[in-house]
Amino acid sequence: MPQRSAREDLVEAGSRVFLSKGFHAASVNDIVANAGVPKGSFYNHFESKDALALEVVKRYVASYDLSPLRAEEGSPLARLRASFASTVERTVARGVENGCLLGTFSSDFGTYGDEVREYVATALAHWGKAVADCLVAAKKAGELPAQIDPRTFGAYLVDAYEGAVARAKVSHRREPLDAFLATTFDVLLPTKAEKRRR
Amino acid sequence: MPQRSAREDLVEAGSRVFLSKGFHAASVNDIVANAGVPKGSFYNHFESKDALALEVVKRYVASYDLSPLRAEEGSPLARLRASFASTVERTVARGVENGCLLGTFSSDFGTYGDEVREYVATALAHWGKAVADCLVAAKKAGELPAQIDPRTFGAYLVDAYEGAVARAKVSHRREPLDAFLATTFDVLLPTKAEKRRR
Repeated sequence: MPQRSAREDLVEAGSRVFLSKGFHAASVNDIVANAGVPKGSFYNHFESKDALALEVVKRYVASYDLSPLRAEEGSPLARLRASFASTVERTVARGVENGCLLGTFSSDFGTYGDEVREYVATALAHWGKAVADCLVAAKKAGELPAQIDPRTFGAYLVDAYEGAVARAKVSHRREPLDAFLATTFDVLLPTKAEKRRR
Repeated sequence: MPQRSAREDLVEAGSRVFLSKGFHAASVNDIVANAGVPKGSFYNHFESKDALALEVVKRYVASYDLSPLRAEEGSPLARLRASFASTVERTVARGVENGCLLGTFSSDFGTYGDEVREYVATALAHWGKAVADCLVAAKKAGELPAQIDPRTFGAYLVDAYEGAVARAKVSHRREPLDAFLATTFDVLLPTKAEKRRR
C-alpha cells in the first residue's frame, strides 16, 4: 500500500479543521494534532496557515463538479435543481453547523489576507457564472420566466444559497437549505412539468 | 459633560473590532487598545470576550429598526425596498469588507458557543418574520405575484441579502448589494407602478 504523505494528511486535516472552526479559530496545533503529524513538519510543507488555507480551498472548489450545469441534454432547470440539491446533501452530510468553506472564508478573509480572499471571490464568481450559463440554456429552452435575466440571476441564486447555508450553520437546522430549494425551484423557476401540475 | 463609562467604550470598541476582524481574530488586547482602556478593566465589566460579543450583537440588532416593515400606510413593497436599501447603505457606509455582524457571527459561532449562536439565529428569524409580515401586507394590497408565499419568502430574501453581503465582503465591491436590490425589487417583486413602466 503506498504511504500517504504528511503533506496530504495536513491538507485533509486542514479541510476538516477549517470547515469546523473557521480560519482564525483553527491553530496550527489543532491541524497537526488532527493530521497526526509532528508540529515541526507543518512548516516543511506549508509556509504558513494561510498557504494551507489556500490549498484547502482550492481542493474544496475542485471537489464540486460544475460541468453538469453546462451539459447539453435534458432540461436545464432540472439540471440546475439537481446540482443545488446535491450541494445541499453534501452540506447536510458534513453537518450543517460546518456550513460552506466559501461562505466561512468570505467572512474570515474579508479584512485579512488577499490571496485566499481573491481566490474565494473568484470561485464564487465562477459558480455564479456557471449557474447563469445554465439559466441562459433554460431561457433558450423556454423554461425561464420572461422577466428573469439569466446573467444576473446566477449570482443571485448563489447568494441565496450561501445565505441559507449561513442560517443553517447558526441555527443547526437543515430547514433553510430545503426552503432554498423549494422556493427557488417550485416557486421562482418551476419547470414546465411543475407548472402543469399546479 | 457626562463622563463616558469604560463599559460603554468597550462595547463600542467591540462593535468596531468584531465587525472588522470577526470574533475569533479579535483579541481582548485589540478591543482594550481600540477602547483606550487598561486591559485589567475589561474583566471588571465583562466575564469574557463571549459576554462582550453578546452585548455587541444585541446592540447591533437593536440599531436596525424593523417597525417600518409593519407600518400601515403606503405600499408594503415600497416600504420593504426602502428598508433593504437603507440596510445596504449602512453596510456600504461601514465598508463592505466589514460585512454584516449577523452574517459574520453566523460563521464564527456555528460550532462555537451557544449563547451568541442562539441569539443570532433568533435575530435572523425575527428579521425574516418582519419581512414576511410586510409581504403578507403586500399580498393583501394585491402587490405580490400570485405564486409567492409571503411566509416562506421573508426568510428567503434575508438569506439572499446575507449571501450578497458575504460576496461584497470577500470581493470588496458593493455590486452584489446593488444587484440584490435590483433583482429582488425590479424583477421578483415589482410594484404595480414598476410593472406599468415595463
